[in-house]
Amino acid sequence: MAPLSRRAEWSRDQPISFLMQQSVENPGVLALSAGLVDPDTLPVEVVREAVDALLSDPRGGRSALQYGTTPGYLPLRRQVRSLLAQLERLDPDELGVGDDQILLTTGSQQFLSIVGEVLVDPGDIVLVSAPTYFAYLGCLNGLGARTIAVPSDDQGMQTAELDRILGELDRQGELPRVKLIYVVSWFENPTGISLSVPRRKELVELARRWSRAQPIYVLEDAAYRELCYESDEMPSVWSFDRDRTHVILAQTFSKTFSPGIRVGFGVVPETLRAAAAARKGNEDFGSSNFNQQVIAWVLEHGRYAPHVDRVRAGYRRKRDAMLAAADRYCSGIPGVHWVRPRGGLYVWMTVPPAVDTSFRGALFHHATRQNQVMYVPGDVCYGGVADPPRNQMRLSFGVLDVDRLEEAIQRLACGIQAVLERSPAASAASG
Amino acid sequence: MAPLSRRAEWSRDQPISFLMQQSVENPGVLALSAGLVDPDTLPVEVVREAVDALLSDPRGGRSALQYGTTPGYLPLRRQVRSLLAQLERLDPDELGVGDDQILLTTGSQQFLSIVGEVLVDPGDIVLVSAPTYFAYLGCLNGLGARTIAVPSDDQGMQTAELDRILGELDRQGELPRVKLIYVVSWFENPTGISLSVPRRKELVELARRWSRAQPIYVLEDAAYRELCYESDEMPSVWSFDRDRTHVILAQTFSKTFSPGIRVGFGVVPETLRAAAAARKGNEDFGSSNFNQQVIAWVLEHGRYAPHVDRVRAGYRRKRDAMLAAADRYCSGIPGVHWVRPRGGLYVWMTVPPAVDTSFRGALFHHATRQNQVMYVPGDVCYGGVADPPRNQMRLSFGVLDVDRLEEAIQRLACGIQAVLERSPAASAASG
Repeated sequence: MAPLSRRAEWSRDQPISFLMQQSVENPGVLALSAGLVDPDTLPVEVVREAVDALLSDPRGGRSALQYGTTPGYLPLRRQVRSLLAQLERLDPDELGVGDDQILLTTGSQQFLSIVGEVLVDPGDIVLVSAPTYFAYLGCLNGLGARTIAVPSDDQGMQTAELDRILGELDRQGELPRVKLIYVVSWFENPTGISLSVPRRKELVELARRWSRAQPIYVLEDAAYRELCYESDEMPSVWSFDRDRTHVILAQTFSKTFSPGIRVGFGVVPETLRAAAAARKGNEDFGSSNFNQQVIAWVLEHGRYAPHVDRVRAGYRRKRDAMLAAADRYCSGIPGVHWVRPRGGLYVWMTVPPAVDTSFRGALFHHATRQNQVMYVPGDVCYGGVADPPRNQMRLSFGVLDVDRLEEAIQRLACGIQAVLERSPAASAASG
Repeated sequence: MAPLSRRAEWSRDQPISFLMQQSVENPGVLALSAGLVDPDTLPVEVVREAVDALLSDPRGGRSALQYGTTPGYLPLRRQVRSLLAQLERLDPDELGVGDDQILLTTGSQQFLSIVGEVLVDPGDIVLVSAPTYFAYLGCLNGLGARTIAVPSDDQGMQTAELDRILGELDRQGELPRVKLIYVVSWFENPTGISLSVPRRKELVELARRWSRAQPIYVLEDAAYRELCYESDEMPSVWSFDRDRTHVILAQTFSKTFSPGIRVGFGVVPETLRAAAAARKGNEDFGSSNFNQQVIAWVLEHGRYAPHVDRVRAGYRRKRDAMLAAADRYCSGIPGVHWVRPRGGLYVWMTVPPAVDTSFRGALFHHATRQNQVMYVPGDVCYGGVADPPRNQMRLSFGVLDVDRLEEAIQRLACGIQAVLERSPAASAASG
């Protein structure tokens, strides 16, 4: 009999642990791997003002330091409604969800995790883009889920492929095991690509059409929704689910405000409300009430929108700096190309197949040890793919400043060239 | 095929939801049911000072608002070591655990939940005191655990009974399914009783002795450890596990400092370190870094110990007030008796068997509707007992002030008497 639960066994050896270990062992590296936010965006003064306001009234201060409710601070859930209504260009009353369908969590990660917990039994199927957000693949593994990859292109998850795969699962009698379709709809982590509008609509239609024996939910991870650097606006996947029955929406204040405050949120269909709240209760009775009150104050006093504007401007500059550096240092290397994201925090780069970007490949080792630069290997972002591509990388422009971003890309280019020159293909060509 | 996971189905209908619903429906009730802390104990000024200090330095402020690490803010884990060392009367270096065996969580609830997650598969056995902390029974149900009740008396869990039950399980071939023994060692929620010192030692010996095919861990929930109102001091169960292999220790800053800040912690044996951290990563990547830095500042600047002294003095007064009120209003009712706790937040009261204290019983209905007072029915605190006693109650002196505590107990006494007078036994006696 194993000393650990099966779920603990399924959660072993996560790439994030390896990445953190590498950071510790190589303290001088420039980390294009980290998913942190830009320290310069962090709202020190705004939080100070909010806390001061909250705690200057002893009675209000005590209420902020007391337990809150499991689903979260009601005034913040109402502020979230207003924010969503604004993003959806709706009146808050037209949103079509009650306050109790909004759950406040410890970052959106906890919300994503809870959705998995309440829907997925071991052996159940979750459909994900290939590639997709690797931390959620870790969650799904921990649940014993079977992830099935849906190919994506420059418009995101290919809905025609999704339809074909669902048909295939139906023929195999596996349709009743399909519980969830997970998609990062804006500036996908890792590719930076947004799901196109027609596909957003189609995704909802497919989820409805294939919900036969049981509902198939779409989990729309909109973590990067507000980090858009061009003027293009898109309706959410959620907006096409007009009766709010099939799409679960996850968002967060971590990227736009502060990950240290750690407040995320999600909206669930009525059918999942009680289960999600019960799960949240079992996990922690509710996230920090104090922090929820801080965020509520910030929203209520109009401090959020201008802050997000500044954050956007900062990341836009950094995205541009990374792309300019890639143009300068990488465009001369044959077979190297990358996505030009319109938002989010990541540039997705592809290198020649001869350059193995995986943890055990030549580039990762060379880059971290020789060039002192680190990235997230693309292959960890594929779930349910036996032999994922090993010539891709996720490069984050979130943390480093403009000068270091340029330096980091230059170092990475050196690493790619060094590995290419030593590869058998290169030797054969030169020999 | 069910639309929800089995774990979600197992988590339905938790007593806490019913209690909260009752609070909403009966807004005028005096709640002896709430597990909140006394608002007067909440450290508004200390938190304000801590936040001000943290955020007055822009660089430090930004670090507090950035992501932290999954196991938690290292300086706070080190402060926790010092606190533990002080409580254990050891030098921090003699504690016998590394910093990475300390996990910071969203309250100790999340730590308790994580321990269950990493150890318990559906059908596995967890041994618990009867009665015990009902919220953890909810967690265990959510995991599909089989809880087996170990009787307790005025010295806590009966270790001789525990030994007998383990022997029985061994004969039935079920020993390999036993993963955990859960015990609230100080001022147990709900009984207020502490596990006696000889039984603490014996508990560890039993866990070791019966760890054959797999380790059987003791989960020591020491949430109320610092809320002691008499001079008696006791070593922890954990202290008897000298090589730190069999006891998992859970504590929290919620009760002694602020539940709104929501920082708890636990110490795990080396064998569980990686699994607990991986689970924490899947759930939320780490609790709020900001709040951990607030608590670290409070400990570092010597603000914690004097605050806990004030908290203790306040609760001691309130415990005394509740006991005095019980003496005044309840001692005249035949068959009513209660525990006089030496710490914690609860008085455990037993009424005559004719008075049904359960949610569906006459007293709960009468008390909430007529007398406007609410308690936690004792039967919800029994796990693995087919027919739990229905004539017990958990009465919390945490939230209400001294005057209201007296009023609440008076109301409760009226309710008990009213129900007794209408009971068939009473009618028979008077008839």
